[in-house]
Amino acid sequence: MNISERRKAHPDHWMKAAALRVLAMDAVQAANSGHPGMPMGMADVATVLFEKHLKFDASTPDWADRDRFVLSAGHGSMLLYGLLYLTGYPEMTLEQIKNFRQLGSITAGHPEYGHAPGIETTTGPLGQGISNAVGMAMAEASMAARFGRKVVDHYTYVIAGDGCLMEGISHEAIGLAGRQKLGKLIVFWDNNGISIDGEVSKADVTDQIARFKASGWDTSSIDGHDPEAIDAAITAAKKTRRPTLIACKTHIGYGSPAKQDSAGAHGSPLGAEEIAKVREIYGWSSAAFDIPSEILKTWRTIGSRGLGARAAWEAELSGLSATRRAEFERVVSGAVPKRLSATIKALKKQISEEKPNIATRKSSENALAAINPVMGETIGGSADLTGSNNTLTKDLGTFEPENRKGRYVYYGIREHGMAAAMNGLAVHGGCVPYGGTFLTFSDYARGAMRLSALMGIRVVYVMTHDSIGLGEDGPTHQPVEHLAALRAIPNMHVFRPADAVETAEAWELALTMQNAPSVLSLTRQNLPTLRTEHKANNLSARGAYVMAEAEGKRQAILLATGSEVEIAMQAREMLQAEGIGTRVVSMPCWELFEAQDEAWRKKILPAGPVRVAIEAGLRFGWDKWLSGERGQDRKAGFIGMEGFGASGPAPELYKHFGITPEATVDKVKALL
Amino acid sequence: MNISERRKAHPDHWMKAAALRVLAMDAVQAANSGHPGMPMGMADVATVLFEKHLKFDASTPDWADRDRFVLSAGHGSMLLYGLLYLTGYPEMTLEQIKNFRQLGSITAGHPEYGHAPGIETTTGPLGQGISNAVGMAMAEASMAARFGRKVVDHYTYVIAGDGCLMEGISHEAIGLAGRQKLGKLIVFWDNNGISIDGEVSKADVTDQIARFKASGWDTSSIDGHDPEAIDAAITAAKKTRRPTLIACKTHIGYGSPAKQDSAGAHGSPLGAEEIAKVREIYGWSSAAFDIPSEILKTWRTIGSRGLGARAAWEAELSGLSATRRAEFERVVSGAVPKRLSATIKALKKQISEEKPNIATRKSSENALAAINPVMGETIGGSADLTGSNNTLTKDLGTFEPENRKGRYVYYGIREHGMAAAMNGLAVHGGCVPYGGTFLTFSDYARGAMRLSALMGIRVVYVMTHDSIGLGEDGPTHQPVEHLAALRAIPNMHVFRPADAVETAEAWELALTMQNAPSVLSLTRQNLPTLRTEHKANNLSARGAYVMAEAEGKRQAILLATGSEVEIAMQAREMLQAEGIGTRVVSMPCWELFEAQDEAWRKKILPAGPVRVAIEAGLRFGWDKWLSGERGQDRKAGFIGMEGFGASGPAPELYKHFGITPEATVDKVKALL
Repeated sequence: MNISERRKAHPDHWMKAAALRVLAMDAVQAANSGHPGMPMGMADVATVLFEKHLKFDASTPDWADRDRFVLSAGHGSMLLYGLLYLTGYPEMTLEQIKNFRQLGSITAGHPEYGHAPGIETTTGPLGQGISNAVGMAMAEASMAARFGRKVVDHYTYVIAGDGCLMEGISHEAIGLAGRQKLGKLIVFWDNNGISIDGEVSKADVTDQIARFKASGWDTSSIDGHDPEAIDAAITAAKKTRRPTLIACKTHIGYGSPAKQDSAGAHGSPLGAEEIAKVREIYGWSSAAFDIPSEILKTWRTIGSRGLGARAAWEAELSGLSATRRAEFERVVSGAVPKRLSATIKALKKQISEEKPNIATRKSSENALAAINPVMGETIGGSADLTGSNNTLTKDLGTFEPENRKGRYVYYGIREHGMAAAMNGLAVHGGCVPYGGTFLTFSDYARGAMRLSALMGIRVVYVMTHDSIGLGEDGPTHQPVEHLAALRAIPNMHVFRPADAVETAEAWELALTMQNAPSVLSLTRQNLPTLRTEHKANNLSARGAYVMAEAEGKRQAILLATGSEVEIAMQAREMLQAEGIGTRVVSMPCWELFEAQDEAWRKKILPAGPVRVAIEAGLRFGWDKWLSGERGQDRKAGFIGMEGFGASGPAPELYKHFGITPEATVDKVKALL
Repeated sequence: MNISERRKAHPDHWMKAAALRVLAMDAVQAANSGHPGMPMGMADVATVLFEKHLKFDASTPDWADRDRFVLSAGHGSMLLYGLLYLTGYPEMTLEQIKNFRQLGSITAGHPEYGHAPGIETTTGPLGQGISNAVGMAMAEASMAARFGRKVVDHYTYVIAGDGCLMEGISHEAIGLAGRQKLGKLIVFWDNNGISIDGEVSKADVTDQIARFKASGWDTSSIDGHDPEAIDAAITAAKKTRRPTLIACKTHIGYGSPAKQDSAGAHGSPLGAEEIAKVREIYGWSSAAFDIPSEILKTWRTIGSRGLGARAAWEAELSGLSATRRAEFERVVSGAVPKRLSATIKALKKQISEEKPNIATRKSSENALAAINPVMGETIGGSADLTGSNNTLTKDLGTFEPENRKGRYVYYGIREHGMAAAMNGLAVHGGCVPYGGTFLTFSDYARGAMRLSALMGIRVVYVMTHDSIGLGEDGPTHQPVEHLAALRAIPNMHVFRPADAVETAEAWELALTMQNAPSVLSLTRQNLPTLRTEHKANNLSARGAYVMAEAEGKRQAILLATGSEVEIAMQAREMLQAEGIGTRVVSMPCWELFEAQDEAWRKKILPAGPVRVAIEAGLRFGWDKWLSGERGQDRKAGFIGMEGFGASGPAPELYKHFGITPEATVDKVKALL
């Protein structure tokens, strides 16, 4: 069917979809930057979805039980902005559309979570959206099990492109969704056969339908420009108990005489002349950004279509018992339970009394054993390292199709997919995700971890085996640069606790910071309890603090994190025995220390004494704390790694690489 | 068939395979660390492969036309070490086997490239080996096209586990191999149904056979303990024109009464008592590490099986013309052609004369246009950003099944798979791979990039759009922490050239350093030529140098990289106009600067003047150069980013984030 036939066959639908298409063309043209081809190709699917299926109410974008819509092919951002504007999301004004991709607008080049209601997650890096959506569908299933289908019962829809499906992360997401039988996850594949380099077939011949089927999905294939076929496919997909892929055969840059079906429609403006031709083909006579009032009105009616359903839902919510409603509202708001603080304090007190000699990964498990019963919204898991990451506590139960009340996810060997699913769990709301792998394999998850930080969401990465202290597995498994690489990510809080008390404090901070992700960097090897005197205050909250004060004249300050604080304490003993007054500063979280006022930082790291930092990683980044903020005259040194690790028993490695109290003492004395 | 029946059915095979099994059990037990289950499960496959199919000669491990064997499931390293020892690779002595996982041994926890001949690539991080193998098979196809099937004609075999196949990178590798119809790539899937967390089905229900078929592979399914079935499957796989997956149903920890078919066999010693029981079941009576002489002899015969074939191959090589043989030997040795140096010099001279105002991504294309005709071994490509990364030069031709002489790979939207394939191309030898994506998406490729660095191999990452200078695509696409994160990787050389001359110099350095990978961080936006005076010497080779000297008393030093050197030069002009003597130091490569002697570093960065660094990224890591190596009293500042970027036109972003000559001048004056 050509466009003129399509216009005749479904005139009302055509004009609604055309509104999306011209907005995309016009905005990209005005910005002289952007991607018109994808919105032009997927406008029919989006129109039918929003008109006939998506449960939403534009006047109340934060309705907890709304369907989620994820534009995984985030470069087609104008499709989303167009939908939000046309359906009447209050913040998405025409002015914003006109300022597409301009500094200060909410209509960024790619959809940015937090810029405007209706942007459910940040997309653009390919494959992330579809993987977030898996987490959202998991969150829905979990919350429905916890609060009942009367208040939680919604779908998650995704538009994904060839790029999303070629990225490795999609394999992890699809596998996880298939195993979890996420029947309320529905993915539209924009099967236009074109990527930036030209025909997709230049790089890929994968039969996507067969591939999704192989991972336990239902599938269908439709003409992505046929509104009836789209409607029927969605209706069918909503009924199945498995996730569904709807392959939509579309034309990128649909209707552009010069650019349809070519890479030229992908990432550049069509040009004024071409746009004029397309307008004519579309039967669209209004000027740029001018949506005829009757078409806008129809779209606005779609935007308010969910009003009744929302009111009914609110009544259902009111029907819950006061306790359950309060709990629902608490977890949706993201607030931690009041009991959390007391729970952590009690745990800390117990640790200070019992003084265990355990790995911080074990301390983390102990903290979780206290936290998980108090916070019903935690959803734990591991990328197939449960026994090593110590992420499973008893009574969590396995999250699986047969047990949606379970709160522990066997993510499989899928670090990137896990991280992205956790992002989805977090942005969905009502869930606080944490998940484990080895610190080294943060490399595999980094694409999604960066988005946790950029979105400013509460995801907790439990990263164990955090140094050469893991021993025999060798350099492929031993992080050396990873602390630096993670600390470098803005808004990422990297905790490297020194003992069981600091681990409990790190957990408390990670859970209470609603606007930032955290990494907990934890040891495989045992560590003594250093915080043997109980303090109710969370000393880690200021990022760094004095673990042991110098006796006599303060000549040296040892800065250390995690497992190396023990070494600093031993070095301090030896230095003090020689009459060298030595302070030990534990720095469990650089980012929090940085956030303190200068007075605190100066109090902890006063000018004068020599400084030696000790960390079983690279020096990279440490000079900031060694040189001081104003380049004061200071002699400073570093005890740590200078390159990759080696395979061998951990104690031998520490000696081999010179990360010892003796080496620390020597360094201090050489500097004095 | 139970074990006793298997022993009867194939007694000779059984004992050969048993030798591998007991060596694995014994070595893991002695180390009290390691993974016995996988070698015990895959010993039959490995035995048949080495005995009947693998083309190799243990006495000449570097035979260029040997088949490649990749243990993608690297935790089963004892399988590989056992094979190398039994077949008689000279360096793999029994002493080394006994020192498995000990400091200083070549038998690391996971196979480390460079530790011993026969270890074709470093594996352990799951999914990497199978993805490297795709690159190796590409290298074979490319070299065969360049030098003829008489001297290049070999297979690439892989053993991959469930973990490898669950990782996203495997999707990228499989898709690439399927598209490229790599018929000489044969993958054995160790289908034992067990991962660390227990049954694979807890996390995954993917039908792997269907999945590989969907990506264009041939497949077969066999009993992985039946030597005849294994032999037949390999024979069949060698004949097809598509890559083949052989799904081998095996038992992890085969023969262990207590641990077979359980996660308990995966990553821990079996224990002395259990080992004794297994020995009895195997019919193996010798002591630990004692291989009966007749069995060792049989294995050594296997190790020398390829001697004749190798001699014949050497005769074929001698039959090539002297020029072609020299070229073959040169590319296999990794030496660059003598003409390269003159080519780069001529290009630099031309640039200094023409003074183009172009983006460094374009300068990189120009450099490649000069290099590619001179170096027939370069294999370029991009992860679907060819026109943006400027990685394609004319006459390269597309590498595809129909044109193996082509040297440009359409990798598809597969950054991680591309990086891992490049690792495979590099370790195979005879190819120098380079590949492009946006700098931000180094996050996606990081797992493989780290291995380039750990292995110390020549892979060139062409990373364009290297700052907020990319503009409207916004923070998801704007790297801010990536320079820091990449510089943090040991042995990774990060080049951020300031103009076309430095870009040419960076390419020369990246290509001549055989033992390290490089990142070329390149701009989207145009930059002026700063090196307008031609110098034959490669000034970038020392990492940092004086781009412009202070006039009058040297009061300030501006340190900058890439696009910000222009800003430094402008700031210098303004400062000099106010009588403030200002030196500009361009630092195209920190790692090379670090490798210089202290005298050079002091010459470039003398004590005294204030220092201000300018880079459109985070300060993270810069304090090293700002504070000086000995904590001299120095006032220092930084002009750059403090967090994530924003969507908008690039010039506005530079102003918005205060990365301007004016801000630099203000900072210098405030410090003075």
